[in-house]
Amino acid sequence: MSEVAGRQKVNVGLIGFGTVGTGVVKVLAENGRTIKDRLGFELVLKRIADKDIVRDRGVELAPGVLTADAADVLTDPDIDIVIELVGGTTIAKTFIMDALERGKHVVTANKALLSTHGREIFTKTVEKGLEIGFEASVGGGIPIIKSLREGLVGNQIETIFGIINGTSNYILSKMEEEGKSFRDALKDAQTLGIAERNPSLDISGMDSAHKIAILSLLGFGRPVDVKDIFVEGIEDVELCDIQYAKELGYTIKLLAIAKEEAGNLDIRVHPTLLSSQHLLASVRGAKNAIYIKGDLIGESLLYGEGAGEKATSSAVVSDIMDIAECISKGSEITLPNLTFNPRMKVMKRIGMVKSRYYVRFMAVDKPGVLA
Amino acid sequence: MSEVAGRQKVNVGLIGFGTVGTGVVKVLAENGRTIKDRLGFELVLKRIADKDIVRDRGVELAPGVLTADAADVLTDPDIDIVIELVGGTTIAKTFIMDALERGKHVVTANKALLSTHGREIFTKTVEKGLEIGFEASVGGGIPIIKSLREGLVGNQIETIFGIINGTSNYILSKMEEEGKSFRDALKDAQTLGIAERNPSLDISGMDSAHKIAILSLLGFGRPVDVKDIFVEGIEDVELCDIQYAKELGYTIKLLAIAKEEAGNLDIRVHPTLLSSQHLLASVRGAKNAIYIKGDLIGESLLYGEGAGEKATSSAVVSDIMDIAECISKGSEITLPNLTFNPRMKVMKRIGMVKSRYYVRFMAVDKPGVLA
Repeated sequence: MSEVAGRQKVNVGLIGFGTVGTGVVKVLAENGRTIKDRLGFELVLKRIADKDIVRDRGVELAPGVLTADAADVLTDPDIDIVIELVGGTTIAKTFIMDALERGKHVVTANKALLSTHGREIFTKTVEKGLEIGFEASVGGGIPIIKSLREGLVGNQIETIFGIINGTSNYILSKMEEEGKSFRDALKDAQTLGIAERNPSLDISGMDSAHKIAILSLLGFGRPVDVKDIFVEGIEDVELCDIQYAKELGYTIKLLAIAKEEAGNLDIRVHPTLLSSQHLLASVRGAKNAIYIKGDLIGESLLYGEGAGEKATSSAVVSDIMDIAECISKGSEITLPNLTFNPRMKVMKRIGMVKSRYYVRFMAVDKPGVLA
Repeated sequence: MSEVAGRQKVNVGLIGFGTVGTGVVKVLAENGRTIKDRLGFELVLKRIADKDIVRDRGVELAPGVLTADAADVLTDPDIDIVIELVGGTTIAKTFIMDALERGKHVVTANKALLSTHGREIFTKTVEKGLEIGFEASVGGGIPIIKSLREGLVGNQIETIFGIINGTSNYILSKMEEEGKSFRDALKDAQTLGIAERNPSLDISGMDSAHKIAILSLLGFGRPVDVKDIFVEGIEDVELCDIQYAKELGYTIKLLAIAKEEAGNLDIRVHPTLLSSQHLLASVRGAKNAIYIKGDLIGESLLYGEGAGEKATSSAVVSDIMDIAECISKGSEITLPNLTFNPRMKVMKRIGMVKSRYYVRFMAVDKPGVLA
């Protein structure tokens, strides 16, 4: 209701001026008035680093903002928050560790990095009394990270499962709704920009595995190595599987699942037969939805856009604003501990999982093999 | 990842030891270990005040914790956070204003109070540099307050609408699914404890109006007087309306709606015909669901338990933990401003709203009236 006492400006630097980076720049410009009214002070995007400083992204920048050298962001003493939107697990890691080392908070959308090197990055963040925001790493338009880490923090989480790869869900939806083959549905997705030219990270289930590793850490308080997750993608789902499932009253969805069972974690990604009555069955196209079961809340569902320039920017900007509020007031970061239950064990073998299975027998054209 | 430096204990006091109060006491006891692991310090429930200090609530309390005098909570210098679960708009207001005056943070589930005296309470809270948590006031098991205030803070919110009264939704669901009359469905709800003996606040739509006023403040940044909201309940929905709607491909839901249109706010509560294809149409029984449309996220939906001892306790406890983290670290409260857009106007007259209407003509048994 009143103006915030404290710093009247917080400076932000961006590394990676691609699709999401451009989205963030646009939001900070276009929604700048609301952002300032909500915060009571100004967010200033001081430097942007990208290898390509020539391409027109359709946004206007003050002279001197754009640089080809990430060090101009990382070493600028006026920059309080570094936004890493480079992606990948190599140079992005160097940038983040360097930013933290220099006492800068970090905001990232990098699920691959956090799910493979999260332990090291989170430890450094806590050591330095800093914060790393990663709302954009899972379900861009869905505030799932904040919900699990803060909103449902009083719960013992029992299960988290959901549709967290929009590309796979789009392909499966097209196959079911229009009777297309996997190959044709994938081609459609690529034409629309929903699938990348090399779609393997999405359709192999690895992207979902990265994301469920992050959600599992938040819900169960134990870092998970992606290698410990059983992962099966949708490449082998054929149109006839979808049709058989439909006849039986089911729909096939690529689910990422994390369950706690007697102190063990069961984490896996695979195509799953879901009852057509289930709320998740009506999640179509590139949308994402995540179910959470907790001892207090019972069942909750969060649904929305999983990716895309705007939805992901929304998540990045909310992280920036969260951290900026603390900086402005000179407050320490106040967030619950991430690793609150390191004692929990991860079940490694899918063979230990009790579940119902769908088995389709194929006629083989080499009868000798079976002889 | 490391232990939190700072205070190793934060004291909490509770006023109102009814259903939700008892739920909160149970959660703090039963999930105490996880709560401590997540926070890195202990939450201590130091005093509980209630008129009735005799009734057995099935929880064990240390001697001296329970008191019949709220002043024992309010004047205790060791208590940092006061939880108000008395309800109503009279004595509860006195307790909250008194707690704030004495420099104590507040957590409440009191939607009636916040939607009628919110302006005064929020102003005092900011003046004193304190925080009032009210996650429990709307959609207990759904982290909607945090999502709107923090998670989606970078968005220009366009529309918020949803099913936010579980009692009404239970009654409408029963009528549709089992062909029961309004009166019979209400009786069922009362037998199950889903409706109160005096159900008028729920079925009149007023409870939904209180809640949409709060969501509207968070989304649009302008306090709303409940008197400015058009409210129609479900008392006049007859079984034949539901059957006619079904024939036309619709389902009837009690919706609370808040929309921004050219700088004006359109806020209303009324039974609405929703396409049977709409995700909200499949929200059945006492469940709640809230749709949010923002310029960045597009459409998101949050779904879960709306009320009940456990779900509401989940919300209360997450607010307590949020505030306790700041207290433990000696940090200022860092939350976005609530009233960030006081210039917005509220459209007062339902006659100004353009919409499609469902009109049913009744045969009247007094033809003279029409003559």
